[in-house]
Amino acid sequence: MPKIVGVVGGMGPEATAAFYEYLIEATPAQRDQDHLTVVIYSEPRIPDRTEYLVAKGPSPLPELIRVAKAVENAGAELIAIPCNTAHYFWDSISEAVNIPVLNIIDETVNCVEKAFECESESVRPRVGVMATKGTARMGLYEQALRERGLEVVPVSESFQQDVMRIIEGVKAGDDRSQSKARFRSAVSALRNQGADGVVLGCTELGLACGEGEFPVPLFDSLKILAEATVRAALESGQERLCD
Amino acid sequence: MPKIVGVVGGMGPEATAAFYEYLIEATPAQRDQDHLTVVIYSEPRIPDRTEYLVAKGPSPLPELIRVAKAVENAGAELIAIPCNTAHYFWDSISEAVNIPVLNIIDETVNCVEKAFECESESVRPRVGVMATKGTARMGLYEQALRERGLEVVPVSESFQQDVMRIIEGVKAGDDRSQSKARFRSAVSALRNQGADGVVLGCTELGLACGEGEFPVPLFDSLKILAEATVRAALESGQERLCD
Repeated sequence: MPKIVGVVGGMGPEATAAFYEYLIEATPAQRDQDHLTVVIYSEPRIPDRTEYLVAKGPSPLPELIRVAKAVENAGAELIAIPCNTAHYFWDSISEAVNIPVLNIIDETVNCVEKAFECESESVRPRVGVMATKGTARMGLYEQALRERGLEVVPVSESFQQDVMRIIEGVKAGDDRSQSKARFRSAVSALRNQGADGVVLGCTELGLACGEGEFPVPLFDSLKILAEATVRAALESGQERLCD
Repeated sequence: MPKIVGVVGGMGPEATAAFYEYLIEATPAQRDQDHLTVVIYSEPRIPDRTEYLVAKGPSPLPELIRVAKAVENAGAELIAIPCNTAHYFWDSISEAVNIPVLNIIDETVNCVEKAFECESESVRPRVGVMATKGTARMGLYEQALRERGLEVVPVSESFQQDVMRIIEGVKAGDDRSQSKARFRSAVSALRNQGADGVVLGCTELGLACGEGEFPVPLFDSLKILAEATVRAALESGQERLCD
């Protein structure tokens, strides 16, 4: 039997809804009964992660732990958290529950590393990162990418503000046309600074990217986490068959 | 505080994902923290409802009750079940929990009644119903519509099979183009038999309707349930303010 997936969600709700869609898409199924059992606790009132990290707002950690325990109590056997900034608290959340918690940063960086592994070893690939101010300030992606020998394109304060405007637009349920234009110019700006690929290091960003080609590959952390979650749920099922 | 919404889901997963999207859309919000707290238990392995009702498959009731209790235990204060056929068991599920369970059939029929209430009293509006074989066989919509004085367009066995093909196509994750064509001809067939409006009495059907105009109004039970759920969650919040 595949493992039951728990989702600590609502940060924001749109991203959690898209995550659930990606889980369904990534699962091979012909009928309802082939799909994964998923317990989603969407708690949008978890205090804002970036507010805490950059402006000393209330800590989201107690609520993150409460929701993680709630999905564990409801039967979840592994946890996914479709919010990058919340991964600043990944260690504490992992310690608070008795089931594995996937790590969106690690999964995304694995994917970037894999995509560039055929490149020449003498040239270090350069990666652009779009993320919240909180994720950027804490260097969640920078640290993980550098550990794998990947170079990170530095970004300006005004670039960071443009990215926050895209994220806030999605969270406010805007019509997306403005966000899509902003998204496209942010990717171009990173490309112009030499990025060989761009990490969408906030779960809202993939919702603003729209259709069409981009000059460099995009690594959407939300989709990558969904695929990793389906893999983990199914793999563990096989392990259990071997018990 | 708005009530916490519990969703007994996974029948099918696509419909539950769309339901969650409709909940988000129907909630007035500018930021994450304005959205509803929602606990979704998506259990696609609940035995097939129609199989039980028309072919003596295993009963889904024990699993429906287990999942309803799980969302209640996780803190839900009201329950929505985005599956019409499962409403054959609505009484038993409602009795098994201590929180209100919305009824998708009642909410949809309320909406149909309201849409036609300005019509002349001498002419009874005729309603076409698209639903699973299980919902049709049990007459879930027919009974509720007749109680409100609405006439129901009779359908043939082959029409019913065409509708099942649309539903199964969505559940199998087909590319939707075939389902959309089938959907359009089913609505036309009902219109030709005199339907003044068509109830989408299975949560998968709205996912196959596609864009564009239809010759009669469609009543999508999935959207109607989502709007009723948001209303119930917010209204109860106001009631509680008056305590």
